[in-house]
Amino acid sequence: MIDPEALITLFKNTRSLTEEICSHLKTEDYVVQPIVDVSPPKWHLGHTTWFFETFVLQENLTGYEAYDPRYAYVFNSYYETAGDKVIRSDRGNLSRPTVSEVYDFRKHVTEKMLDLLENNELSEEVKKVIELGCHHEKQHQELLLTDIKYILGNNPLHPVYREGFREYKTEDLPQEWIEIPEGIYEIGHSNKEDFSYDNELGRHKVFLNPYKISNKLVTNKEYLEFMEAGGYEQVLLWHAEAWDWIHENEITAPQYWYKVNDSWQQYTLAGLKDLDPEAPVTHLSYYEAFAFAQWKGLRLPTEFEWETAQERFDWGQRWEWTESAYSPYPNYTKPPGTLGEYNGKFMVNQKVLRGCSVATSPNHTRPTYRNFFHPHLRWQFTGLRLAK
Amino acid sequence: MIDPEALITLFKNTRSLTEEICSHLKTEDYVVQPIVDVSPPKWHLGHTTWFFETFVLQENLTGYEAYDPRYAYVFNSYYETAGDKVIRSDRGNLSRPTVSEVYDFRKHVTEKMLDLLENNELSEEVKKVIELGCHHEKQHQELLLTDIKYILGNNPLHPVYREGFREYKTEDLPQEWIEIPEGIYEIGHSNKEDFSYDNELGRHKVFLNPYKISNKLVTNKEYLEFMEAGGYEQVLLWHAEAWDWIHENEITAPQYWYKVNDSWQQYTLAGLKDLDPEAPVTHLSYYEAFAFAQWKGLRLPTEFEWETAQERFDWGQRWEWTESAYSPYPNYTKPPGTLGEYNGKFMVNQKVLRGCSVATSPNHTRPTYRNFFHPHLRWQFTGLRLAK
Amino acid sequence: MIDPEALITLFKNTRSLTEEICSHLKTEDYVVQPIVDVSPPKWHLGHTTWFFETFVLQENLTGYEAYDPRYAYVFNSYYETAGDKVIRSDRGNLSRPTVSEVYDFRKHVTEKMLDLLENNELSEEVKKVIELGCHHEKQHQELLLTDIKYILGNNPLHPVYREGFREYKTEDLPQEWIEIPEGIYEIGHSNKEDFSYDNELGRHKVFLNPYKISNKLVTNKEYLEFMEAGGYEQVLLWHAEAWDWIHENEITAPQYWYKVNDSWQQYTLAGLKDLDPEAPVTHLSYYEAFAFAQWKGLRLPTEFEWETAQERFDWGQRWEWTESAYSPYPNYTKPPGTLGEYNGKFMVNQKVLRGCSVATSPNHTRPTYRNFFHPHLRWQFTGLRLAK
Amino acid sequence: MIDPEALITLFKNTRSLTEEICSHLKTEDYVVQPIVDVSPPKWHLGHTTWFFETFVLQENLTGYEAYDPRYAYVFNSYYETAGDKVIRSDRGNLSRPTVSEVYDFRKHVTEKMLDLLENNELSEEVKKVIELGCHHEKQHQELLLTDIKYILGNNPLHPVYREGFREYKTEDLPQEWIEIPEGIYEIGHSNKEDFSYDNELGRHKVFLNPYKISNKLVTNKEYLEFMEAGGYEQVLLWHAEAWDWIHENEITAPQYWYKVNDSWQQYTLAGLKDLDPEAPVTHLSYYEAFAFAQWKGLRLPTEFEWETAQERFDWGQRWEWTESAYSPYPNYTKPPGTLGEYNGKFMVNQKVLRGCSVATSPNHTRPTYRNFFHPHLRWQFTGLRLAK
Repeated sequence: MIDPEALITLFKNTRSLTEEICSHLKTEDYVVQPIVDVSPPKWHLGHTTWFFETFVLQENLTGYEAYDPRYAYVFNSYYETAGDKVIRSDRGNLSRPTVSEVYDFRKHVTEKMLDLLENNELSEEVKKVIELGCHHEKQHQELLLTDIKYILGNNPLHPVYREGFREYKTEDLPQEWIEIPEGIYEIGHSNKEDFSYDNELGRHKVFLNPYKISNKLVTNKEYLEFMEAGGYEQVLLWHAEAWDWIHENEITAPQYWYKVNDSWQQYTLAGLKDLDPEAPVTHLSYYEAFAFAQWKGLRLPTEFEWETAQERFDWGQRWEWTESAYSPYPNYTKPPGTLGEYNGKFMVNQKVLRGCSVATSPNHTRPTYRNFFHPHLRWQFTGLRLAK
Repeated sequence: MIDPEALITLFKNTRSLTEEICSHLKTEDYVVQPIVDVSPPKWHLGHTTWFFETFVLQENLTGYEAYDPRYAYVFNSYYETAGDKVIRSDRGNLSRPTVSEVYDFRKHVTEKMLDLLENNELSEEVKKVIELGCHHEKQHQELLLTDIKYILGNNPLHPVYREGFREYKTEDLPQEWIEIPEGIYEIGHSNKEDFSYDNELGRHKVFLNPYKISNKLVTNKEYLEFMEAGGYEQVLLWHAEAWDWIHENEITAPQYWYKVNDSWQQYTLAGLKDLDPEAPVTHLSYYEAFAFAQWKGLRLPTEFEWETAQERFDWGQRWEWTESAYSPYPNYTKPPGTLGEYNGKFMVNQKVLRGCSVATSPNHTRPTYRNFFHPHLRWQFTGLRLAK
Repeated sequence: MIDPEALITLFKNTRSLTEEICSHLKTEDYVVQPIVDVSPPKWHLGHTTWFFETFVLQENLTGYEAYDPRYAYVFNSYYETAGDKVIRSDRGNLSRPTVSEVYDFRKHVTEKMLDLLENNELSEEVKKVIELGCHHEKQHQELLLTDIKYILGNNPLHPVYREGFREYKTEDLPQEWIEIPEGIYEIGHSNKEDFSYDNELGRHKVFLNPYKISNKLVTNKEYLEFMEAGGYEQVLLWHAEAWDWIHENEITAPQYWYKVNDSWQQYTLAGLKDLDPEAPVTHLSYYEAFAFAQWKGLRLPTEFEWETAQERFDWGQRWEWTESAYSPYPNYTKPPGTLGEYNGKFMVNQKVLRGCSVATSPNHTRPTYRNFFHPHLRWQFTGLRLAK
Repeated sequence: MIDPEALITLFKNTRSLTEEICSHLKTEDYVVQPIVDVSPPKWHLGHTTWFFETFVLQENLTGYEAYDPRYAYVFNSYYETAGDKVIRSDRGNLSRPTVSEVYDFRKHVTEKMLDLLENNELSEEVKKVIELGCHHEKQHQELLLTDIKYILGNNPLHPVYREGFREYKTEDLPQEWIEIPEGIYEIGHSNKEDFSYDNELGRHKVFLNPYKISNKLVTNKEYLEFMEAGGYEQVLLWHAEAWDWIHENEITAPQYWYKVNDSWQQYTLAGLKDLDPEAPVTHLSYYEAFAFAQWKGLRLPTEFEWETAQERFDWGQRWEWTESAYSPYPNYTKPPGTLGEYNGKFMVNQKVLRGCSVATSPNHTRPTYRNFFHPHLRWQFTGLRLAK
């Protein structure tokens, strides 16, 4: 049973945090889409709003009419069953609606949602969709930060997003191996009351061989050793398609690393900074994380190993690549209808990442949370932890 | 000899007209680049300013330092000899400098230019570069209007640029054939005093066979007859690469034509309007102009025929496609140095257009003016006049 | 310990079977490469020969010199550590060496290999490489048949490869569900004496939930029901990238299905034939296998479920898509050196297939054999078995 | 009036010369298509045969039925009005019909054509189509030689086509400038009796300014000076799209030039040979010819200048790039029907070449002959002659 008051608080806080994130932008920053994976911030603002309008207001608020019926076309993302949409690569071609018009749309929908939440006794089913909408918007908050980082970090002027934004804390402890004995372990989300995504559900047993997992994330210093040892030139460390990828894209360092006058700098949301050797390395693809582990004679953990061991180390700075492909858990079933498109349809050709990052919204992760990306992507705050 | 006062007036008027054109935009409209041929308006504002800074101020105003040395990288267009540049397809990925920062840059350079113009006796050579810079900016004024039309006209919301913008006047006269006898005619710009581009110079003789040229542009009504007669499906009317182009791009009508409830509408800078059958047809590629002429059993004039006959008809509403490929005139020589890149390097694979359009800036065309575009492009206000 | 006599027999039989497969071809059929995944038959002939020359003769036969040093460049496939190579998409551009020259190369290497095998006491290590070379060639025998099928089956003349080639036998038994109780099962190859690939090694425990698996492969009739029910148009059945794939490639049926006068025909290695509704469906991508299972409300088995249950059903007609991504087994280690490129570097973005097909060479599969392909590929004899 | 006996001789000689050209090939050489512009030799054999079957036999020989109706699909090239066709880039994917089957098809059609020619009184119109078919086949004879050169010259084994094939003779005379006074000159084919293509017809007047044209082709030695002076790195010498082209394709020398142990070799139809400094340079694109002329401070002649002066110099070794774009002559009209596709539909984005080359078939050129190619193509025996 979702508590109505808690839901109103969740909704309000979520909506205002999104706006706080965007408050540091110039109008122009809201508009551009430098690569297909990065969406314009104003699209995120509109899309998260469209979600509530389409899946909550239009179905549950009597007499509600779409704020502007053409917005459905502009702000739908990938819900094929919810109508036509602007193709993803064209989002950055739309100067209208303007930023201010999108904020008007947000304000309107937020008010109508509060009207619905405050003046109606909602069914559990409707409350669940609203709760999902909030978590959906939290996911877009992280995407907003990483997309903004891409937009500003690839601009030749390297503008600052927000002075003082901290992208890491150093882990001031010696590297050690945590040992986990062989055995049967339980994996997945079990508590029916708490929120979770469909892809975490179906708690189930797995058998694990004995393994060791590091208590620390890999640092910039360690990664630099790999680079200086010629890691990017040793073919046997790389997957075949990784090798093609680094050559086609001329990859020789993590994203946002710039060599300035012979020393490494890193673009951060607080601007260009000297590389801190003790910081956890970030903005790596799975391919690079794997090659680094090969070079060390070690490996990445599976998502099951990670979940089983996670109580024994600190996590939360970097999304941690695992060796696991993103697949359905036993007995996974898609939710019915349009919301069934949420997770299941991406369960091929992607790798699972566990934990969360400095860009993740508060209360948006869990030990069972399964994030996933294609193996070449690295504009998220990704990192790695070794196992053996 | 260029008159200094006239030059100051030309400079001031040119700079302010550019800003007037942009005054109808929202900030977001300045930023996007929906196709590679269309540049973001703020790029035009910066590029025309960069031209004066690079080719005039840095070479002639003592002690002048670049307003921001990184802008050279952002606002260079195609002058390979003038340093590195953002590749053309990436212009729409840059949210910074912001629109307001670009206006500050403009203001700074305009003031310094006026300082230079008003307080110095400039050599004829320098005055010529300034004059060229003004004509260069006039070219970008037309591009601004056509790029804005593309940005707004391809937005699903079809926003208005400026109420009351007139894209044509109807030609209220019967179609007639103007007859020109065979003979030797003089072609090209002769007056050394007046401004012209390098590609018009070298007045020279050509021999023309007797021909007839229409006193009127082809109208929407006539073009619609071609469409309704299945013109787009008759392979023998089309060049081989035109046939491929219409199929790959699913072209079945001029650009900006939309069929709404079974009747044709046209996006104009004043918004969506009913198609006026008497208006001169526009936004055609050369391929379509050629196919239309084939269908009529007629042809396009050459640029020499057009120039020879132009005194006997009204022109100025549409850039008129000619059959002539864009080639150097006899004895054409490139200007030395970077400005030599201005015209000559485009003299392959393009077709000449003559006249001017409703989007052309005042005093920016001449009977000898040679415009040129690749044969598939149609976001300019192009049109056609028949010959036989 | 590999028995020398058995190894000679294996070598001779393997070499002659390859040549038997090709004996049904015209010279022209050996040369073409209609898509990047399909190699010209003469390339297979040369590549399997180059393998023995490079990894056996040049390292172990005293005084052996390369038959033609330029062939290394022509016939290397993906061994990055073994020198430069013709890029894969260019193999079909090479008319030389001719087919007859490639057979001469084969004959030379086969004779030298027999010389080595018959007149020397070889170390276990060398015998293992020879054994691997034979199994490598067996893999190429299956590729030869499927590549030939692609070459002939996409030719507008639909030529016959070999009259009487049988692509299936019908399974004349009622469909039933085999039930497997939950428990810990052993997976992977254990017998150190028998040949296996590196990717099967490391026998290890897995925990399986209770499940049911079909005793029969899905038939053409069942798949046709899916097609006729509009399976290819129901977005919720498909992965997101599958949906893009079927639209970009206009996929509406398995590969080699042709609708002729309103009834379905299928290209087989014996030519075009009427579709047999009872035959096991084949030439499906993983995407299609998955969508079919979704439509039935069922799923594909994992590779562990398949391996555990396989003794209780007949298999061997079709490579069976599983839900498992191709990943390393616990404690997987690459063999050292160039042969380490054999399997490990493909362990990303591919799906495991189990069993074998009508095109698989004799004695070339095992219950633990792990085949793998990208999820969109379907020129192999793929099929599916349902689980729940 | 075409003389029947002469026509039979023309037909026989043409058919047998095609076969003589191919007699030096291996079967495999007939099959491949390394780039889209190069067709497999067996396609040329079939296509020239299909031309006679489709445009002559099927329309004029009573009771003639297509040898194999499916061949129309395989061997049609670009006649959109003559039915579906294999797309050009797929010709190299077809192993069938085999070379021997194509020769059977040729033999059959040749015999039926001789039957028609020898036993019937043919109308002038039919004789003209046969004559056109012979000239069409002569064009394909030159393409055969240049396509074979591409196929063998890009094979890493560099096989010889025919020992003793001479690709040039050196011009043993001093370079001089031929002066032509200004005036009105006649251009185009006039003799109604002799064969010519539609694009040469319409003899007409042009006015030429006084000019000078070289008596010699540019040599390898001269071109090497341009290369050694850094010609490929000086942006101001190149058209904008040429500059992009040389960078995308990493062009730094004419085609078929290979640097072996610090000295230049050239692949010829007789195999790899040392570069002869006195030989006329060949296998240049228009872009390179233009850049070379710019570097010399000179230019290419127009096609009118070339035709007017051609009696005063030797030509015939190289197709000579001109500055002229390929456009219709005044009063050009397409022939009616399918044969109207012959020339007119290519009159955009191509450059005219004049003369002929060492690969041109006997009696296949004239002073008025207009060859044409896209400016980046260079697998023909192209060259250049300077003008000023």
